[in-house]
Formats: sequence, structure tokens, C-alpha cells
Amino acid sequence: MRRLHNQHEQFEPGTLTVVGIPSDENSSFLRGVALAPNRIREALLSGASNLCAEDGSDLSQIPQFVDVGDLDLPFGEVWDTSGSPRIEAGISKLLNQGARVISLGGDHAVTYPIIKAYAAHYPQLNILHLDAHPDLYDELDGNRFSHACPFARIMEEKLAARLVQVGIRTLNQHQRQQANRFSVEIIEMRDWHQGMTVEFDGPVYLSLDLDALDPAYAPGVSHHEPGGFTTRDVLHIIQNLNAPLVGADIVELNPTRDLVGITAVTAAKFLKEIATKMLNTKDYHEKT
Amino acid sequence: MRRLHNQHEQFEPGTLTVVGIPSDENSSFLRGVALAPNRIREALLSGASNLCAEDGSDLSQIPQFVDVGDLDLPFGEVWDTSGSPRIEAGISKLLNQGARVISLGGDHAVTYPIIKAYAAHYPQLNILHLDAHPDLYDELDGNRFSHACPFARIMEEKLAARLVQVGIRTLNQHQRQQANRFSVEIIEMRDWHQGMTVEFDGPVYLSLDLDALDPAYAPGVSHHEPGGFTTRDVLHIIQNLNAPLVGADIVELNPTRDLVGITAVTAAKFLKEIATKMLNTKDYHEKT
Amino acid sequence: MRRLHNQHEQFEPGTLTVVGIPSDENSSFLRGVALAPNRIREALLSGASNLCAEDGSDLSQIPQFVDVGDLDLPFGEVWDTSGSPRIEAGISKLLNQGARVISLGGDHAVTYPIIKAYAAHYPQLNILHLDAHPDLYDELDGNRFSHACPFARIMEEKLAARLVQVGIRTLNQHQRQQANRFSVEIIEMRDWHQGMTVEFDGPVYLSLDLDALDPAYAPGVSHHEPGGFTTRDVLHIIQNLNAPLVGADIVELNPTRDLVGITAVTAAKFLKEIATKMLNTKDYHEKT
Amino acid sequence: MRRLHNQHEQFEPGTLTVVGIPSDENSSFLRGVALAPNRIREALLSGASNLCAEDGSDLSQIPQFVDVGDLDLPFGEVWDTSGSPRIEAGISKLLNQGARVISLGGDHAVTYPIIKAYAAHYPQLNILHLDAHPDLYDELDGNRFSHACPFARIMEEKLAARLVQVGIRTLNQHQRQQANRFSVEIIEMRDWHQGMTVEFDGPVYLSLDLDALDPAYAPGVSHHEPGGFTTRDVLHIIQNLNAPLVGADIVELNPTRDLVGITAVTAAKFLKEIATKMLNTKDYHEKT
Amino acid sequence: MRRLHNQHEQFEPGTLTVVGIPSDENSSFLRGVALAPNRIREALLSGASNLCAEDGSDLSQIPQFVDVGDLDLPFGEVWDTSGSPRIEAGISKLLNQGARVISLGGDHAVTYPIIKAYAAHYPQLNILHLDAHPDLYDELDGNRFSHACPFARIMEEKLAARLVQVGIRTLNQHQRQQANRFSVEIIEMRDWHQGMTVEFDGPVYLSLDLDALDPAYAPGVSHHEPGGFTTRDVLHIIQNLNAPLVGADIVELNPTRDLVGITAVTAAKFLKEIATKMLNTKDYHEKT
Amino acid sequence: MRRLHNQHEQFEPGTLTVVGIPSDENSSFLRGVALAPNRIREALLSGASNLCAEDGSDLSQIPQFVDVGDLDLPFGEVWDTSGSPRIEAGISKLLNQGARVISLGGDHAVTYPIIKAYAAHYPQLNILHLDAHPDLYDELDGNRFSHACPFARIMEEKLAARLVQVGIRTLNQHQRQQANRFSVEIIEMRDWHQGMTVEFDGPVYLSLDLDALDPAYAPGVSHHEPGGFTTRDVLHIIQNLNAPLVGADIVELNPTRDLVGITAVTAAKFLKEIATKMLNTKDYHEKT
Repeated sequence: MRRLHNQHEQFEPGTLTVVGIPSDENSSFLRGVALAPNRIREALLSGASNLCAEDGSDLSQIPQFVDVGDLDLPFGEVWDTSGSPRIEAGISKLLNQGARVISLGGDHAVTYPIIKAYAAHYPQLNILHLDAHPDLYDELDGNRFSHACPFARIMEEKLAARLVQVGIRTLNQHQRQQANRFSVEIIEMRDWHQGMTVEFDGPVYLSLDLDALDPAYAPGVSHHEPGGFTTRDVLHIIQNLNAPLVGADIVELNPTRDLVGITAVTAAKFLKEIATKMLNTKDYHEKT
Repeated sequence: MRRLHNQHEQFEPGTLTVVGIPSDENSSFLRGVALAPNRIREALLSGASNLCAEDGSDLSQIPQFVDVGDLDLPFGEVWDTSGSPRIEAGISKLLNQGARVISLGGDHAVTYPIIKAYAAHYPQLNILHLDAHPDLYDELDGNRFSHACPFARIMEEKLAARLVQVGIRTLNQHQRQQANRFSVEIIEMRDWHQGMTVEFDGPVYLSLDLDALDPAYAPGVSHHEPGGFTTRDVLHIIQNLNAPLVGADIVELNPTRDLVGITAVTAAKFLKEIATKMLNTKDYHEKT
Repeated sequence: MRRLHNQHEQFEPGTLTVVGIPSDENSSFLRGVALAPNRIREALLSGASNLCAEDGSDLSQIPQFVDVGDLDLPFGEVWDTSGSPRIEAGISKLLNQGARVISLGGDHAVTYPIIKAYAAHYPQLNILHLDAHPDLYDELDGNRFSHACPFARIMEEKLAARLVQVGIRTLNQHQRQQANRFSVEIIEMRDWHQGMTVEFDGPVYLSLDLDALDPAYAPGVSHHEPGGFTTRDVLHIIQNLNAPLVGADIVELNPTRDLVGITAVTAAKFLKEIATKMLNTKDYHEKT
Repeated sequence: MRRLHNQHEQFEPGTLTVVGIPSDENSSFLRGVALAPNRIREALLSGASNLCAEDGSDLSQIPQFVDVGDLDLPFGEVWDTSGSPRIEAGISKLLNQGARVISLGGDHAVTYPIIKAYAAHYPQLNILHLDAHPDLYDELDGNRFSHACPFARIMEEKLAARLVQVGIRTLNQHQRQQANRFSVEIIEMRDWHQGMTVEFDGPVYLSLDLDALDPAYAPGVSHHEPGGFTTRDVLHIIQNLNAPLVGADIVELNPTRDLVGITAVTAAKFLKEIATKMLNTKDYHEKT
Repeated sequence: MRRLHNQHEQFEPGTLTVVGIPSDENSSFLRGVALAPNRIREALLSGASNLCAEDGSDLSQIPQFVDVGDLDLPFGEVWDTSGSPRIEAGISKLLNQGARVISLGGDHAVTYPIIKAYAAHYPQLNILHLDAHPDLYDELDGNRFSHACPFARIMEEKLAARLVQVGIRTLNQHQRQQANRFSVEIIEMRDWHQGMTVEFDGPVYLSLDLDALDPAYAPGVSHHEPGGFTTRDVLHIIQNLNAPLVGADIVELNPTRDLVGITAVTAAKFLKEIATKMLNTKDYHEKT
Repeated sequence: MRRLHNQHEQFEPGTLTVVGIPSDENSSFLRGVALAPNRIREALLSGASNLCAEDGSDLSQIPQFVDVGDLDLPFGEVWDTSGSPRIEAGISKLLNQGARVISLGGDHAVTYPIIKAYAAHYPQLNILHLDAHPDLYDELDGNRFSHACPFARIMEEKLAARLVQVGIRTLNQHQRQQANRFSVEIIEMRDWHQGMTVEFDGPVYLSLDLDALDPAYAPGVSHHEPGGFTTRDVLHIIQNLNAPLVGADIVELNPTRDLVGITAVTAAKFLKEIATKMLNTKDYHEKT
């Protein structure tokens, strides 16, 4: 892995970029997730472990895996009526250079501008969304860009061909209606079992909210929702995904609640597995 | 959900009441569980989640779900030879008004006076008891009302038709003898597997000690006993209970050990699921 | 259980001894695990639980279960070219008196001198090694006795007939080569499932690194490696081991990260189950 | 102390009321301070201490000291162009009944609507403001009601005769300009020393931001600003205030950072001392 | 410092002994202080510091400073009508051998049986008591041996010539009456200032409750009482004590609240300073 | 403040550079301080405060204040016989470009190679050293570059004209001898009082070990030594230093113990004050 320090530096098409999006202005309950990108990097590079995925791929030896640093976002930025042009432009710039992107949030609100950028490149994008919450609110507390709303925006604007949500365990009446309205496919956590698979026949974007995990595994999130995945469950889902993975985000790490750092190190582990899966689906990408 | 503030306020028969019992005088190792009822309410109403159970029932919209506040107990009260007349009377008063009750402990000692009140209304009561410990000691440290003893008292006085304990993993010789003496049915944790069910053919009272969970899921308890349930295991047991649920308690939350609050939020999740199960067994109750 | 206070005190052959090895000089990332032995004893004797294993064996009633205290190690000792003669001699002295030994680390570096002592008594020793890491590095940061290296040393010197590693999830290229070189049998965590068993036909030594557990279950370790065992998984492995267990170590508890103590209490639970398993394999030992 | 449960219940003129204002929508960095009022009550009534102030006044014996519960505020409420009519009305209602008020925030934004209510009753109000920050921003992140702005609003609208700030240690150029514009009297922390006093010749309102304390004494705040008061410093200021104290607020307790609760118990201690000081200045009030 | 492991081992007259008293049965709010003695030893010997007092005395080089281990107390022991004969006998045995004693609690209840033993050897004993609380309750929650009561018992039985309390900040009406009844000399914290000294003209016993410190300095106590001493204040009091110090206790460390261990290390620092002061007053003792 | 990302980028003479030195290989008790530089930057830029020093200087507006990132150090590097050529060269390179340097450790071992670089530019350097420990050991655990030894190395090699240590509270016999041998001027903590000043008549380098603070103010250090400075004490020392400040380091922040981050934010506060002091002594530097 290389770390780019100069944002104007060029990279090869086919590069897999990691970018931080330190944004938590749209969080409804707690803030602090803006601190996440640096904590994930710290866990990744801490010396407590190596940079290998479980299949043995050593990311430290792969030059096309590049950390491009954080998007430059003003602290406390208020989003405009189109969402966050800065985030959208930041991701578009990377995609335009031929890169694929793993975004490190920030709260889940960032997925909407990310997908706006992705949709321009992947018109038939499938989204696999792991989360305790469907994030389909039409608005929350008057904010249509709340971290409770990104998938309502995405589906309204038809930015995804399919949206498959797994791990959900907080559906209320409004969110069920939204899911129906947008034909969201939901596997609720109470119905999920190890070994379940989801089939896709096109490019997949993985949106991984760490609160999909049970709070035992991820105490460092803003919204604890008990009864969730184990870390191994999520590793199985990533490792067994049978479709080209073209983009991903890991969101909602809240370091202020992660007292001994296990959530950050779990995010870093997911980053390694997602990156390896994406690097192994290079062929698809190059054909596109 | 409504919150009653005036204890003399009346409610309809069939109401499902939540009552706090902030009592920890009979704890043998640590204290602090008297703080639990308010922390469970805080987690329930915190804004980090909604009031929906996993089947979509929205408790915020159900007027017969009523929080009646805490029983008025003096701090550090020494129990008398009959146990705790205050707790027994507090529960009886609710039952006499036609309510069913979910009690929020407090330590497990409170289950004895609760069941004394329940037995007067439910002569064939079955108890489903989820716990790491059988709580069948004849006495502990000279205290017959210790939180290690309530089920010895209950069974001695024949207050329950059946006592089924699930999750147990600390049986010693004395407790095995007590279990035999009282014909307690025990499914030890080492023998338990997901999907196991317990059949009942009459009304069931659920006594849920949070240390039934593994300490990974419930660090906020006084007695950590590793090797326990996941939160999902307990949710399955509650959701799949195939018998009329007429009362319940959630006990042994110790907020002084719950540094980021995941145990409190887990207790609140169980409260929502138990309440929904009880509201869905209304018919039974009304026939009784 | 007895606690010996005078290290010159004699005990009967066949005694099962617990000894602390407060050593963390060879830890590569954090220190603090030298504090572990006393914290495990504290958890074992705390009054929060009893001394019974899950099969009902009450260790408090078994006189041949003896805590001999800690080996006397200077703080910050630098190991010599042979490893740690003090640790090796300390374990040898116990074995020479006819005892079997459960060692409480300290970091995993201690397993090399322990096994040197064991190999002299058990020429066909099988090692069952539960860990997130293979600990097969030839050297780390210039230290051949690093806690990342003990099994390289053990296998180089042919101190074990077989080495079976379970739970591994950090293999890099170098460690895979080492594993091949030494014919280490590895069950990686991604391939493991509950109910898997390993067969042995001779004496077994169990080396239990607490980071084999997922960090949710064992936050108190120096190297968090997500995706690991549940505590119940490890209990099943211990309880279902179908071979004579002649020695064991429990290593890598780092109390400085164990904020509410659940890792220490988990170590104490494993100690009870391992001791019970070893006491139940007495016959084998006496024949040897 | 009595706790009123029915908000329509009447009380005598001259009553000293405590009211919770669980509002953190206007916090700029972290949220969570909405949890504060209940935690302060919990600390006050926990059984770890008594209800006496240091001069021996026993608040448990004073019937005119009344907790009226929390203002009823929707979670995540967006303030309107006048601020928060709900908070202003809630405080006005208490003042109109002849009470004086100690408000438990919530973040510091609540002081603006509180003072709007107070100004109607106390046209020559002096404000003694203890804080690390002057909270004089014209706006922050586009929000003119940010918790960084209340005293800009108060002074713009001439709601106070004098504003004296003590403990300040974060003045930037903009805030210095604002202070000059509004003739705010500031004693910076670097110039403060024990024994310093501030003289007032009219009624005083005390606005106590807990981050006036050094983070060693108040880790449970959103904005840690080292170099602050000791708890004893603040107790001295309260106890030696030589002017009629007619109202107060205690704000910015953030329980999500208060791991062992010392900030909450410190807030409760200040509440006892402030209440005692206010009860001892009853004469002034009654003349007004 | 030596550690005695065999309680029947003899030592020279004039030895300064440290003994642990792991007792918390009489704590009124939380338990856990029984864990304190081992945590203080752990901090003392941890390798994070040396064994020198601030005047340079190196306790590691002083053979007459001896740790005799813990008194053997059953967990959860109920005291009899005379208090705790075991504790009293344990201390008497040490005094009878010509030793002086520093006791490591346990809660403050242990001071009563300790002083019973001391009074037999020191008929004109002066007690210097540093604490947030006077611990003069006649009884608490029905327990006359509560940790809130030891000095009532001591003074009733005229076991001390003078009792001087410093740092007190929770006096209620009952405790003021008790203080008057027993002629206790109290310097309240609000009146204390650095440099204040207390004069004694006979042997002094120091009873040091760690909650005399502000919770910022001692978060690891059961009863947080803000507004207390700094650690340096207490060091000054110990170092400047101008009278023969013949015994001491350090009580109320609650490790369950001491998340990063600063209270334990502070207790260990006090132990070093007290021991040095006592070793420097040997002449007095030998004359006695 | 600017952040340089390209280490080959040039800057103007007179620039004040901040550089991270993530090194903890020479720590004797715990590791983790290598994580410090990024945590200090995170606290500095977190949005919880501004970049103003207490005299109003706004570092965000000062272009000659430049963060040059971290020195590139291999994890776990073993130092060679000359110390750390990498650190020495890294600092020399900055000094050679005409910059002054504030180094963010890392443990205290880094001060020796820093001062080697400084001595070449400042032959009459005075060192003001704030610390609980004198760090004058000839060697510790066989390591002459231990973080307990840097000032022995510095004084042996006559790299400083004067060494003045303030806040010391752990002197043993060996360290007193070393202090005499090197004519170190020591103000022990027990003798220090607010308002004390140290006079220098040449350039001063400030070496600030965060454990000079009491653990109440700095829980996040490896070696807790109670009885230390308040944060305000250290701010006073910095603000009132009456001599040209030409370099500084802030060392020994251990984020693994800094659960809510108050130590990191305190380090960031010191960084702002030190930088402001250094920027205000520009004239001296330019004359040199």
C-alpha cells in the first residue's frame, strides 16, 4: 500500500483507492464519527497485525492499493440542496481517473453523494447494504440528508438497479412503506442465518455500516442495536460474495465510544478483506 | 407508551405495565443494580433507536403499554422475614387492577416477592428462567433472600407449577441437590443449541437475568460468567415462545460496569420484544 | 485448591499445579501481560462465582490442585541465547516432582521454555495451539524469542511430535512457508466450524492464546484480531478433547485493556475447565 | 426535596424549582448532553452521599425545593427564528408562578431562551458566567443558536445589565471583538487566582458550564479545555457570592464521556450548593 | 521489602508490617473494595516506578519493611456483635510481636477492629483521619458496623484520646451532633488551606480514606465526593506530620471504578510515604 | 498552520516546524506511545476547540507554523550504538533548513538524538526538563537508550550547558548520584510552588514529559506518578519563561490509557502555547 500525500499526484487506471470522508454533520444522535478515517488507518498500520487478508494476499506488497488521504471537508459543513457536492466531486475525480474506491466514513449520509458519483460510471449498480437500520427515512428531524435517509435519496433518484439490505432489525411502519415503494429487498436479522447468500449478476457496491454488527463486536458506533452480526458473519459475506465488487464504504465508526479500539481494528480487518475481494475482481472492471 | 406520573392514576384492565424495582440490598458481590430501571428507560427513549419490536409493532403507538415508574423503596432497606412486603404489595396492586407486569430490577432477589404476588393470580404458573446461575441456594452469606436464593424460596413455597432454567453454567453440588429436590428442569448452557424450544401448556412468567448472556454481550452485570447466550439467542427464545406470557422481569443490569451502555440498550431491546409478545397474548389473559 | 506459599514445600506426585509466569519482555506491540497471573487468580477467587467446572467438579474440594505462585522473574529480564533458563528450570522442577502444570502467562514467548521442560518428560508430545496467530516467525524486530516466534523454536528443535493450530487468521507468506517447513497442521478460522474435532493418539499439551477469541470476548489482549472464537467455542474444544491432557498454558491476557475484567474472568473459566479435564486424565499420567 | 410528577400541580410562590432541559441539537462537536438531567438527578439521589450542602443545609428537609421534572422537548427539535419558544415558555411558566429556577441542561444554547424568560422578570439582571469559552460567536456553522452563541444573542437583545465571564481560556480575535462590542467583563483563566471576587449590586444569574472545570475534574463534557478550575475553586465562587442569586443553570454535562460518573456527581454537588445559596437569598426575592 | 508467605514466620520487634484486609461486607453503596490490597501491591511492584519515597528512602533495601500478606477472611463474612474478631486478632498478633502495622483495606469499617487492637498497646492514641466523610453515623441501614460508623464505635468505647478529622465535606445534622458528643475536632474541606498543620503530642495513627482526595485524583472509590484534596496536599500532610506515627490504614480503594489504575498507584505512593515516615519515627516506638 | 505532505518540499528559514516521532521501542513498562503524534494532531484539529493560544495568537493564521508530518521510522526498530541516526538526521535536516522544531514523541528516548542534532546548532543550549522522573539512569534492563536514560547520555556527551529539571518525584540513590555527577539542577516536586521561576541567559530547549503532570490531569501516560503538576502550573511555566525558546519536545503520551482523550487534548494545548512562545522569540533566533 502506498499513501499519496499530494492530491494532484496521478495514479494508474485500475488503482484501488482508499479515501477518508470525515463527515458527521448529518448524524442524528451522537457526533464523533468524523474521527473515524484516521483511526481505521491507525489500526491498519499499528504494528499489532500485518496487512494480509485471510486468503494470504499481502496488501503491503500491492502497489495499486493506494491511500489517497481524506477529502478536504470544512468542519461542520451544512449540506446544500443537492447533498454534498464536495464529496460527490471527490469520488468522481477518483472514478474519472479509472480508480475504484473504498470510502471510510464518516456517517452513513456520505453514501448518497458517493453513489451519485458511482451511478455515472455504473448505470446498473447493485447495492449490498449491511446495516441494523434501513436508512430509508424520507427525512429525520427536518434533514433530508440525515444519516437515516441516504437510501431514500438513492432510490428516489434511481441511482441503483437493486438495493439489497441484510441485517436490518429496526423497521418501523414508515420504513416498511419506503421499502415497498422502492422495491428494496430486505433480509431481516431475525430471518438471517449463516450460509445465506445473495446472488447478483452485475457490479456490486457494498455499503457496510458497522452497526450491522452486534454492539458486542462493535461498541464504537453511535447507534447500538443489539442482536446483530458477529464479525465472522460479515467476513463470510464479504469473502463469499460471488459478483464483481466495484466500490465500497465502511461507515459509522464512532471512536468516542470505542474505548479499547476493537471497533476500529474490526473496520480495518473489513477494509483488508474488501480490498482483496475488489483486487480479485479486477478483470470485470477492466472490461467495463 | 405512556408514562404515569401519579401512582394513584387508574388504568384499564388489560394494561401492560412496566415498573422499576431499584433494589440491590441482597446482592452478594457488587452493588449498583439499583440504578438499572432508569438506565433502561434512558436507553429505550434515547433517540438512538425507535420503539418498534422486530415484528414491526410500534410500542409508542400502543396506549395500553404504560410505564408506572418505580416502586418507592427506601435505599438500603433490610428485608423482613417474609421477604419484601413493599415489592410484593406493589406488584399485587398492579395485578389487582387487571394489569400484567414487566418488572425492571434491581437484582434477582426481587423475583421472589414478585412471584408471591403473581402466584395469587396464576395458581398454575410456569416460570421460564434464563440465567447463568440457578439461584437455588438455600442461603448465601447468611441471607435467605440473597439474589442467589429466590428460586429456592419460590419452589419451597410451591409458588410455581414448573420451573425451567435455561443457560445455566455454574451448578455446584448444593445447587444440583436443590434442583433435584424441587424438580427443577435445567438446560445447561453446554447442552443448549440454537433452535431448542421449551413447551409449556399454561401461562408463563419469564425471568430474564442479563448474565444469561455472555459477558461480551452484557458486560454490565455484577457476575460475569463467560460462555453464555448471544443477544440473538435470547431474542429467538422470546420471539418463539409458544405459550401465553403473563409476566416478566429483566434483572441484574449493573450500570457501573456498563461503560458505553450496551447492556442497558440490550435490556431495552428485550423489553420491547417481551412487551410485544405479551401484548400479542392478550386473548389468553382476557379469558383467565 | 490450595495455595502454596513456600516454594520449597513438597507435594505428592500427580499434583496438578498452577504457576504464574509474569513475563512480557518479548511482546512486540504492547506490554502489560506480566500483570495477568494475579488478575486470573483474582477472578478465580473473587466471590463472583464458584470454583466448579461445568461438569460439576468442584476444584475447591480437590487437594491435588495446587497454586504454587509465580516464578521469580526479574522485571524486564533480557533472555539469553538459550531462551529463559529460569522459566525452563521452574517448570522442570515441578515436572520432576511428578506434577503436571498449567502455566499462566505472560506473553506467548513463555511457551518455548515451558515446552523445552515438557519435552524432556514427554518425548512424543502433541501440541494443540489455539490462537489468532501462528507465532512461527523466524524472528521479529531482531528478537528470535519474540512472542511471535515460540513455535518456530519448538519445531526447529523437534520438541513436539505434532503441532496443530486452530483459529489462525493472520497467515502471511513467511508464516505459510514456516508452517510448510515444520509440517504444522493448521485449521484456519475461516474454515473452522463448531463441532470440528482434532484427533490425537498421545499426550496433548494445550497452548491457549486468549486472542484466539474474538476481541468481543477478549478485549484484554495486546493484539486484537477480529473474527475469532466465541468463549463457548473454546469451552467445547476443551471439554470434548479426546486425549490425555498433560499440560497447558493460558497466555496473552493484557489487563491494561480489560477495563471491566471480562477477559480475566474468561481466562479463569478456561483454567477451571482445563484443570478438570487434566484431573480426569489422571490415569494416563500415572501409567507414564 | 419533592419531585413533582404532574406538571399542572401548583406550588407556593418562593419555591425553588429544578427543571431539566434535555436539549443538544445545537451542539457543534458532540451530542449526548441531552442525557444530563437524569444523570444529575441519579447522582444526587444515588445513596452515595446525602443531600446536605457544605454549610449543613439539608435539602431533603426543605419542602420549597422542588424538582419539576424535564421540559417536554421533541428529540432533535430544530429551533425557530426566535430560538426555542418551548424552553422560554417552560421557564416563564415557572417564574410566573413565583418560583426561581435552576435549569439542568442540555447544552449551553439553552441559556438564551432561559434568559429571555428571566429578563421579563428581572430587568437589571447580572449574569455571572463560568466557562472555558465565551460563547459569543455571532454564528457557528451557520447556526445563530449554536451552543457557541447564546451570550451574543443575550447581549444583542440587551437582556442583561452586566455579563461577567470567569475562567475563559479560548478567546480568538472574533470573540474578543464581540466581547468589546458588548462590554463583556472577562477574567481569563490565566489571570484568575483563588480568592478573587466579583462584586454585584443587583440580582445575579449564574450560568455554569461544566467545562469551566479542568477536564481532570470534568471529563464528561463535549469540549475538553485543559487548564481550568478545580471543583473547589467553583465551590468557593458559589459559596462566597455576595449578591442575591435568583437563577442558575448547570450545562454541558456529557454522560457519554463520563465513564465513572465523576462529572455527574460534581454537577450534583454544585446543584446542592447553588440551591442552598438561592434559598439563603430568599429575602431579596420576596421583596422584588 | 520482603514478602512473608508463611504466616507463622517470625519477625524482629520493630518491624513495619503491611497487611491486607480484603473486607467490604459493610459497604453501603458499592462493593469491590475487597479487591484493593492486591491492586495496591501490584501498583507498588509493577515496574512502572521504584520503591523510593520522595526523601530518597528506598524501601526495597529496608529489611524491616515486611508484607505479611492478607488476613484470612471468609468472603461475605457477617460481623458479630463485637465487630470483627478476626481482624482485631490479626492486628493484635502483629502488634504483640512488636510490629507496627499499615493496613490496606477493605472499606473503612475495618478501622474499628484495627483500633481496638491498637488501643490495647497505645492507651493515649491520637487519630488523624483524612476523609470526605466523618463516618460517625450511629448506624446506617441498620448496621452499626457500616463503613459509615467506625469512628462512632471508636469514640463510644474511648479507644482514642483525640480524633482529628481533615477534609470533611458531607456533614449532616446527625453527624454534627455525633461530632459534638464525642468532641471530634474537624477541619472541614471548605476551611482547609495548604500549609495548615495539626499538632499532636503523642503517638498518632493515620486513617486515610482515599475519598478524602477529589474524585479527579481518586476515581476508584465507592463514594465520589467532589471538592477534595489533591494528591500533593495529602503528601504534604504525611511528610510534614510532626509526631510519632505508630500505625496507619489506607482504605476504600475500589478497583472496579479505577479504569486506568491511577487510584491504586496513588494508594501505593501514600504507602511508601507513610512507611518512610513510620520508619523515621522508630525511636519513639522503641522507647514505648 | 500548514501541513506539508511532501517531505522534500522546502520552507523558509525561521519556520517553526512540528514533527512526529512515533517511537516506543525503548519504553520499559508499556508501549503505545508511538500512537501519540497522530492523536495530538487529531486533538489539535478536532473541531472541539480553535487554534488560538491563550494570548490570542491564532496559529491557524500563521504560515510559518508548519506540520511536516512524522519521521519515517520502521516499527520496532532496534537502535544502534550511536542511538537513532534516523531521528538525529531527521531533526538535523529541519535545523539545517533554518527551522526550529517542536517534536511530538514517542517516548522520552527520542530526546537524546534530538539534542544531538540541536547541540550542533546551539553549543550553549540550556535544557528545561519537566518530568516526574530524572531519566538519568546509566542503563535500564541493559538498554542504555531506554526512555529512563536520555539525560545521562546528553550530559555525558556535554550536549547541554545546563540541565534544569522541575517536577521530579522519584529520585533514587543512583539517580541522585548521576545528578551530582552531571551537575543537574533539580527542583523536586515536593519543594516546588506556583510562582517559582527559573532564570536562563541563553537559548532554552524545553523537554516536556507529560507525566510531569499529576495522573489526574494526564491519565494517558505509561508511568503514573501521583503528586504532580496541574495543567495550569505547566501553562504558567511555559507562558512565563523568560528566555529564548529554540526547541521543544512533548513526549510520553500513551493513547492506550487515555480513555476519553484528555491527555491528548492537554498535549495539544501545550503545543499551542509552546509554539506561540517560540514564535514570539523569533528575534533571538534570527540573530543567531
